[in-house]
Amino acid sequence: MSPSQPFPPDATLADVGEFGLISALSGRFDQGSQVFVGPGDDAAVLRTPRGHVVVSTDLLVEGRHFRREWAPARDIGRKAAASNLSDINAMGGTAHSLTVGLGAPADLPVAWAIDLADGIAEEAALVGASVVGGDLTTAKEVVIAVTVLGTCDIAPVLRSGARAGDVVAMAGRQGWAAAGLAVLARGFRSPRALVEAYQRPQPPYAAGPLAAQAGATSMIDVSDGLLADLGHVAHDSGVAVDVRRDAFELADPMHAVGSALGVDPMQFVLGGGDDHAIVATFPAGTALPEGFTAIGSVGEAGEAGPVVTVDGAAYDGPTGWSHFQ
Amino acid sequence: MSPSQPFPPDATLADVGEFGLISALSGRFDQGSQVFVGPGDDAAVLRTPRGHVVVSTDLLVEGRHFRREWAPARDIGRKAAASNLSDINAMGGTAHSLTVGLGAPADLPVAWAIDLADGIAEEAALVGASVVGGDLTTAKEVVIAVTVLGTCDIAPVLRSGARAGDVVAMAGRQGWAAAGLAVLARGFRSPRALVEAYQRPQPPYAAGPLAAQAGATSMIDVSDGLLADLGHVAHDSGVAVDVRRDAFELADPMHAVGSALGVDPMQFVLGGGDDHAIVATFPAGTALPEGFTAIGSVGEAGEAGPVVTVDGAAYDGPTGWSHFQ
Repeated sequence: MSPSQPFPPDATLADVGEFGLISALSGRFDQGSQVFVGPGDDAAVLRTPRGHVVVSTDLLVEGRHFRREWAPARDIGRKAAASNLSDINAMGGTAHSLTVGLGAPADLPVAWAIDLADGIAEEAALVGASVVGGDLTTAKEVVIAVTVLGTCDIAPVLRSGARAGDVVAMAGRQGWAAAGLAVLARGFRSPRALVEAYQRPQPPYAAGPLAAQAGATSMIDVSDGLLADLGHVAHDSGVAVDVRRDAFELADPMHAVGSALGVDPMQFVLGGGDDHAIVATFPAGTALPEGFTAIGSVGEAGEAGPVVTVDGAAYDGPTGWSHFQ
Repeated sequence: MSPSQPFPPDATLADVGEFGLISALSGRFDQGSQVFVGPGDDAAVLRTPRGHVVVSTDLLVEGRHFRREWAPARDIGRKAAASNLSDINAMGGTAHSLTVGLGAPADLPVAWAIDLADGIAEEAALVGASVVGGDLTTAKEVVIAVTVLGTCDIAPVLRSGARAGDVVAMAGRQGWAAAGLAVLARGFRSPRALVEAYQRPQPPYAAGPLAAQAGATSMIDVSDGLLADLGHVAHDSGVAVDVRRDAFELADPMHAVGSALGVDPMQFVLGGGDDHAIVATFPAGTALPEGFTAIGSVGEAGEAGPVVTVDGAAYDGPTGWSHFQ
């Protein structure tokens, strides 16, 4: 990535135009060995081995998924890439390529768009992936559409394979981003560790392929909320899932936020998304892969159907996010 | 696609929620034989032969790329898919899979979203492609992010391969959509043929692979505008391109619109996009593939650099679209 920015620091998208910005951005994306044709043509072309291509897409909208006043553009870019890379992780796959669509008002500073692009490229580089194409357009609010492509070395791990008797295990932080969001929403900027967890999640990218190799029967990344996402696994697998509160060690900043906001910090763990932790189920007796901790168990779906319980009982707190409602 | 809609006809996205809509939409997308895991998991998984994957992404924004009052949702879906499928076409590839991100206000009628999805699936089916994944989110304006994946049987045809002496040839209609847009923008609804060309473009999907097989040296789809897109070819190939006005036969409705609006209808042909015609260059003497007509020639880039001229002279009309400016 070039350290020089070819535009005045206060230039807007209206000043440089679509093709000026495309030209500035294209040179900032290092291209991996899988890239046969990178940005700048009608489409990107990737060399692929015979096998499975894994593809996922996310649409992030200003005011909903991010706020420009709550995080620098580079962090928003990292987060946009992370949420998609995490989906490939949750299949047991490895990402290699991204496309990015950016919709933005004409008065958006060019420097913001470039920082966003750098953040996306930085996060992608953590797993060895490249930005291979994109689209730019005018929009009233900033909209970021990211699509990630990857490959699976072995069979992808779906949401539908959990079986009664399996152990539920998790890798990565959980609840930190939700606590950070709660802090920001009240107008505070600390504890820094939690705010930074919201601004720049650190998905456990190694965990997905490790879990697949260890024989995970189902897997999902926590993006809507832990209980909500375990609900997807329970539903698609036709099982019941129980989570144990005592499996989670609450870090000091979580206790601090709970006290400051007058809430049980466990609600961030059970209902929060955005950390992109990986939750997988393993046959009983499986040696859990590095980074995973057991957090619960899978049982037969009873009369109540494929439900998720906490310590054997229904949970009446917020379980996660649903759009439009 | 199911003929029954599971919601009341006046239901909004707020009424059914994200997961209600996902559930309704997922069943409407027929899955092709390349789909190993379709919609409903963290990511879609596609079986792929060894070779090249071609990928392209487009972001369409309400008020900019479409207006709900100017076209029914099904046509907007067809157009959204078409603009992306056309990019794969322009590489000489064949599309097999799409992902779709939809951002929409909570008061959007569910029926509109379903019609949009049906339109996308219909257009994709024209080339045998499936919608394999997507994302739904709240947004102030309707935003549609489409990513298309395809394969190339032979080497992809880039923008950069045109050589002096080549013939420039075009397949598909050109200028019809731009004329239709001009009609709509003045508040008229006819001539119908032009309005429909804008609402529902008919890209020549066979043309790209045929041109690749015939030895095309460069290729692009006309989406920004004929001269603007030929400008990309000229620039990337380091050549000059000349287009002949007399190569284009103006259909009767184009003449009618020209008279009604008091403009030279040739400006729609030279400056219009949105029909997704395919323009390719071929070595002199190549038997042009079915559907292609010669429209100009490639010369050495002179002192003026890689320019596009019309009948040997600079063109001073609008050449196409650039966002943000």
